[in-house]
Amino acid sequence: MVLDAAESAELALLVEAGSMPKPGNVEPSRDFPDTSYHQFQAGAVGARSALEDAAADEAIGRCFRRAVKGASRHEGGNTHFGALLLLTPLVQAEASDGVDSVDAVVEDTTVDDAEEFYRAFQAVEVNLGDVEPDGLPDAGDDDAAEKVRERGLTLYQVMEGSADVDDVASEWVNGFERAFRRADDLQRLVEDGSPTSEAVASVYLEMLRTEPDSHVARIHGDHVADDVVSMANNLDVAALDRRLRYDDINPGATADVLSAACFVALTRGGLGI
Amino acid sequence: MVLDAAESAELALLVEAGSMPKPGNVEPSRDFPDTSYHQFQAGAVGARSALEDAAADEAIGRCFRRAVKGASRHEGGNTHFGALLLLTPLVQAEASDGVDSVDAVVEDTTVDDAEEFYRAFQAVEVNLGDVEPDGLPDAGDDDAAEKVRERGLTLYQVMEGSADVDDVASEWVNGFERAFRRADDLQRLVEDGSPTSEAVASVYLEMLRTEPDSHVARIHGDHVADDVVSMANNLDVAALDRRLRYDDINPGATADVLSAACFVALTRGGLGI
Repeated sequence: MVLDAAESAELALLVEAGSMPKPGNVEPSRDFPDTSYHQFQAGAVGARSALEDAAADEAIGRCFRRAVKGASRHEGGNTHFGALLLLTPLVQAEASDGVDSVDAVVEDTTVDDAEEFYRAFQAVEVNLGDVEPDGLPDAGDDDAAEKVRERGLTLYQVMEGSADVDDVASEWVNGFERAFRRADDLQRLVEDGSPTSEAVASVYLEMLRTEPDSHVARIHGDHVADDVVSMANNLDVAALDRRLRYDDINPGATADVLSAACFVALTRGGLGI
Repeated sequence: MVLDAAESAELALLVEAGSMPKPGNVEPSRDFPDTSYHQFQAGAVGARSALEDAAADEAIGRCFRRAVKGASRHEGGNTHFGALLLLTPLVQAEASDGVDSVDAVVEDTTVDDAEEFYRAFQAVEVNLGDVEPDGLPDAGDDDAAEKVRERGLTLYQVMEGSADVDDVASEWVNGFERAFRRADDLQRLVEDGSPTSEAVASVYLEMLRTEPDSHVARIHGDHVADDVVSMANNLDVAALDRRLRYDDINPGATADVLSAACFVALTRGGLGI
């Protein structure tokens, strides 16, 4: 398949959301109470033009804020904040020196990018729980964007400050290690004959079984994130899905990293599409 | 929701494919033998830039051929030929005087547009069965594009010639009557509280129950198309799906018209997204 970088990123969001079963996350057969599967599709469609700007080498922060805004034109609230924070630099890297050059893209971000990042919060409701990384502005504050400028922090430095408590920020400062590793897993499964949807669902489950989800930890506490790992290892998929939905637990960071992994696999032609 | 015309058309394709159950057509839980759900997603993503050209008032035929080509960059063959033949003029109408002005758009098509239409056949494999409308070039012939130019037929006239045997062509010459009527049905269901996916699946089933599918008729004969109507009225959804898949019967024209109906409903804000 030959799609450009922005098209591949949009498709990555659609493929992640459209694969099932993914216990605790949105899928075609199961809407969230406040957000439908089709609103996730609309979010992916709405983010595309800002991702095209990222591919055209416009500033990461502004592209990210525009992508978040574009993805939120449906009635279902924030759908793609974390995934777009990963995909925006990945798209820019892929469109220039290739996806493997993403480190240089994130390390080159500026204070302007950090300011735009905090402004993106004001465009949508992002639930980050009560965990506030030390030394960073409170993302919920109306003047967070001004504060990050006063302190002279770049977006990369903001991500450094959040890396311990946020899987997406951790990817930024660790070479997108999980996204690339999970892309390898996806490619291996597809090469071994798995249909795309099964490969994506299988890697999702393996992520739940091995890595506590930072979104779950921020909202519900570390012990709940650890419980999810344990449940994913001990329950069958249907029971796991019931438990997560009943307790309103959404492993959202896992879905974000999985979207990035789908993108990397798509750019390498390895998703069987 | 506020999306532009090309974004809405892409989302219409995604919403149609992503809703279920749709017996006999692709859906997220069921791939076709040669084409996966994710390849349908890739087709929608790949068609978008040509639909943007249609919104920018470029010639219908060229936009259609480019959309078909863009939608076929995955490994799953032709996914969206019929739907794009409906959406290209609908997008152009919506971007200028509104979707209701689509009649003027199709009536204004030229011999150039007809030539591009036949060239689109050469870009993808479209199965039209053995039914060949009188007076039109054989779409399978390599020189069909030259023949339509010799005969001086516009694309609208080509559609007039196929309207009796093709639901998509029939829409072109009958004011997109079914697309608008089914858009009304979709809007009514959503206003009455149906989730988007249920509304789309419900209208799909109602179409199968009331209108023989021309794609089925062209491939398998009129009696099989009539049988499908009868089966849709007498079997439950699971049994209908099994029967259609077992006999390799795909009500593809119904899905095409439903995609157009989703587009019309989206432009009116009436799909609950």
